[in-house]
Amino acid sequence: MAKTNAGRFFEDYKLGDVIAHAVPRTVGEGERALYHALYPARHALYSSDEFARDCGLEASPLDDLAAFHVVFGKTVPDVSLNAVANLGYAEGRWLQPVYPGDTLRSVSEVIGLKQNSNGKSGVVYVRTRGMNQMGEVVLDYVRWVMVRKRDLDAAAPDTVIPDLRTVIPAEDLVIPDGLDFSNYDFVQAGEPHRWGDYEIGEKIDHVDGVTIEEAEHMLATRLWQNTAKVHFDATFRPDGQRLIYGGHIISMARALSFNGLANAQMIVGLNGGAHANPCFSGLTVKAWSEVLDKAETSAPGVGAIRLRLVATKGGDAFQLKGEDGKYLPEVLLDLDYWALMPI
Amino acid sequence: MAKTNAGRFFEDYKLGDVIAHAVPRTVGEGERALYHALYPARHALYSSDEFARDCGLEASPLDDLAAFHVVFGKTVPDVSLNAVANLGYAEGRWLQPVYPGDTLRSVSEVIGLKQNSNGKSGVVYVRTRGMNQMGEVVLDYVRWVMVRKRDLDAAAPDTVIPDLRTVIPAEDLVIPDGLDFSNYDFVQAGEPHRWGDYEIGEKIDHVDGVTIEEAEHMLATRLWQNTAKVHFDATFRPDGQRLIYGGHIISMARALSFNGLANAQMIVGLNGGAHANPCFSGLTVKAWSEVLDKAETSAPGVGAIRLRLVATKGGDAFQLKGEDGKYLPEVLLDLDYWALMPI
Amino acid sequence: MAKTNAGRFFEDYKLGDVIAHAVPRTVGEGERALYHALYPARHALYSSDEFARDCGLEASPLDDLAAFHVVFGKTVPDVSLNAVANLGYAEGRWLQPVYPGDTLRSVSEVIGLKQNSNGKSGVVYVRTRGMNQMGEVVLDYVRWVMVRKRDLDAAAPDTVIPDLRTVIPAEDLVIPDGLDFSNYDFVQAGEPHRWGDYEIGEKIDHVDGVTIEEAEHMLATRLWQNTAKVHFDATFRPDGQRLIYGGHIISMARALSFNGLANAQMIVGLNGGAHANPCFSGLTVKAWSEVLDKAETSAPGVGAIRLRLVATKGGDAFQLKGEDGKYLPEVLLDLDYWALMPI
Repeated sequence: MAKTNAGRFFEDYKLGDVIAHAVPRTVGEGERALYHALYPARHALYSSDEFARDCGLEASPLDDLAAFHVVFGKTVPDVSLNAVANLGYAEGRWLQPVYPGDTLRSVSEVIGLKQNSNGKSGVVYVRTRGMNQMGEVVLDYVRWVMVRKRDLDAAAPDTVIPDLRTVIPAEDLVIPDGLDFSNYDFVQAGEPHRWGDYEIGEKIDHVDGVTIEEAEHMLATRLWQNTAKVHFDATFRPDGQRLIYGGHIISMARALSFNGLANAQMIVGLNGGAHANPCFSGLTVKAWSEVLDKAETSAPGVGAIRLRLVATKGGDAFQLKGEDGKYLPEVLLDLDYWALMPI
Repeated sequence: MAKTNAGRFFEDYKLGDVIAHAVPRTVGEGERALYHALYPARHALYSSDEFARDCGLEASPLDDLAAFHVVFGKTVPDVSLNAVANLGYAEGRWLQPVYPGDTLRSVSEVIGLKQNSNGKSGVVYVRTRGMNQMGEVVLDYVRWVMVRKRDLDAAAPDTVIPDLRTVIPAEDLVIPDGLDFSNYDFVQAGEPHRWGDYEIGEKIDHVDGVTIEEAEHMLATRLWQNTAKVHFDATFRPDGQRLIYGGHIISMARALSFNGLANAQMIVGLNGGAHANPCFSGLTVKAWSEVLDKAETSAPGVGAIRLRLVATKGGDAFQLKGEDGKYLPEVLLDLDYWALMPI
Repeated sequence: MAKTNAGRFFEDYKLGDVIAHAVPRTVGEGERALYHALYPARHALYSSDEFARDCGLEASPLDDLAAFHVVFGKTVPDVSLNAVANLGYAEGRWLQPVYPGDTLRSVSEVIGLKQNSNGKSGVVYVRTRGMNQMGEVVLDYVRWVMVRKRDLDAAAPDTVIPDLRTVIPAEDLVIPDGLDFSNYDFVQAGEPHRWGDYEIGEKIDHVDGVTIEEAEHMLATRLWQNTAKVHFDATFRPDGQRLIYGGHIISMARALSFNGLANAQMIVGLNGGAHANPCFSGLTVKAWSEVLDKAETSAPGVGAIRLRLVATKGGDAFQLKGEDGKYLPEVLLDLDYWALMPI
């Protein structure tokens, strides 16, 4: 019996399969510090225990995207080791903050399957839940990936494409217990702009840029225990380049968005996302955002804002797609998310 | 209203302005570990809780320079985003150790202004205080920077140059409560040389060198939430180089100085400092020190030693300035500080 | 009196000398997080407090190799600063897990000396013990290094070569108090293979590879306070390369071995090890293992497995030595260790 994990191929997935992903992970102050060293993260709620307590939380949580990366990383050996492409995300919701000391694990359910017409691969849809040591779900999202077949003669499964919402309705967003922005300190948060100051359709150029280093994206990706060879092994791709984990670009762009969106504190919903083009070491990542929607919430002083976050490796801000409707070559990421902001 | 921070220009500063800098930061074990990974730091008081307790402290504090970098980093968006040059430091005093779990914030007061004769820029003097969550001041220092004007026609302010001491008198140094070197363990500290073994005028070549990597200086600078573009964005300067944060060189040189000054444990005063030449990735940093002064203190077994710490990128040790009185091109840093040492 | 440490030369060691190494170190959550960022470490016992508690431990310990590196790092200024080569390890035993908050220090005894026939250097054998803040020995191992003489005319010491066991008998391995694999969760651990599934002589190709970066090996080596110039200073060797600390390769190979040996959880014995060839930045490290022996233990559900772990920088798996009996040029490491595995 071979001892190493060759990963699952398309024909290994059955609708309704529930996969308990391995290697639970206790996160702590070390992960928090590393997140701040790897990304220019400055949102005050994730930087200061005092600020977080003044907002009604017990302490400063681990960055929402760090929680996402830990939960996501566990799924890689079971879901995307033989993936050709990460096609999309939907219906992502953060249900509980993750605090230092929490232990996370992940479970995925196969909710859709569709063999490609070429018969060589297929699309697998999974709903992944991340849970803490109390068994509480902290994060829930759908991802679909294109996976190779091992045996091209394996029978195609019945096609099932899940009915996914393109946008999470604001009323389905989960606000952390106790969150209260009534006495929000805009000075300490870094910008005066409140929820009411943003208009739907408004675009913000985040101005700052970060040039990517091999050591940094590998440190980050390993920290989330994401094991995909392509991120670490320069001999794996014919061009000798290491493909950067898409989540590294998400975190980089989100951190850069502080400059203009310092008060978009908590991420509570992921409506969708596309890794439009690959990113490699040496490129300089910049970001811009667009306000897509706004909604009130039931929590005191807390509004929800729906944002498009675009990361680029050059070109002018606010450019996204060409006349052919395809992403421009300099676009790395197009993310659609909900954040919470003081009203 | 533009949402991003364009930074302040010279004409935006008024004498007496008090600026509360944004983004409080809780520091912890993660920052401590990262400091040890980024610099060859070995001073025992900052490495071992046991050693620190044997010296009368409650635990091993965060490195004094890490505290400095956190406090300094917060000032960058308000003080030096449009700075042409960081001109100097004076009257720096560490007033309280910073322990894991402390939350730091910074406040600066404009204490001096002087427009340059070219009318395009001016010098801004600020006194910055770093405070912990109890509101106690942990660090206090003066810095002056040259800042561009936005509007060249803006009226020049009255010139006010603060009266700064070139050296902090030893009696004004603050010794942490309870510090006691009576039972200091020289074996565990790494060197037998005590305060009495150093002579004024003595010079020490610290011998070791570290070659600088892009990933490392960026990890460090981000960890202190210092956002100056020039450190991160390789497209920002015409030469495509990322300028290394001067504080990275200070920490590197101080850590290298362990070899010969292992017992210069705590930094309590910063008399002055010049970043003599810029540093870039690929250079190898070495350091030498000169004993400038010595003083007794009221704490048991504790002496104060005033040191010049020079970082270089090559050349022979103990070279500093040329015949023209200017720093030699290989000198990166000339720092003048007070440290505490067992008598 | 020179203040800097020039290191000891061969003639400075006397049989029976006991050297208390400097700079005690408190390890914590930060070191744990950094270990996971620097190596693709996924063994569940070192990743999750919950998993560790379910195995009878109080919490997730610091990785056994991290403990080794911290203890080893302290010995460098006293043992290997003037070493020409690190020749071997023997009789290494982990005696206690190291938990976040523990403070480690190291003591070595000179147990053997042999001057080389060229009269220019000699071999020094030391037994090093790492101890925690309670004075408990957490690690005990023998290492021997070739050290230069300062004075070629110094008299040769009597030759004493210690009688070292090439393999630690399984009955001498120390199982951590309370360790119990009776209810071991193979799903969460990541692989179904138990002790009974491995056969003596079986070889496992761990498949994955990691390309090494300068920043990463320097971060790691500094974190262990290993100060050997050759790892950090690109101007030190004539070829301008920084030699990578051999322990970095040990940790990298061990982490890669998760893929096929996910259940070889705890390292309890180090029978021997050779750094067969030097490693430099840019090389891609892969690993393979061979099962050398198996033994039962007295702890519930716990078996011992003796493994050869080989790290390479290329070539086919399972190649080790040439016809001349020498290591092939692509072999970096040949390590012989005991691990604990669920039966």
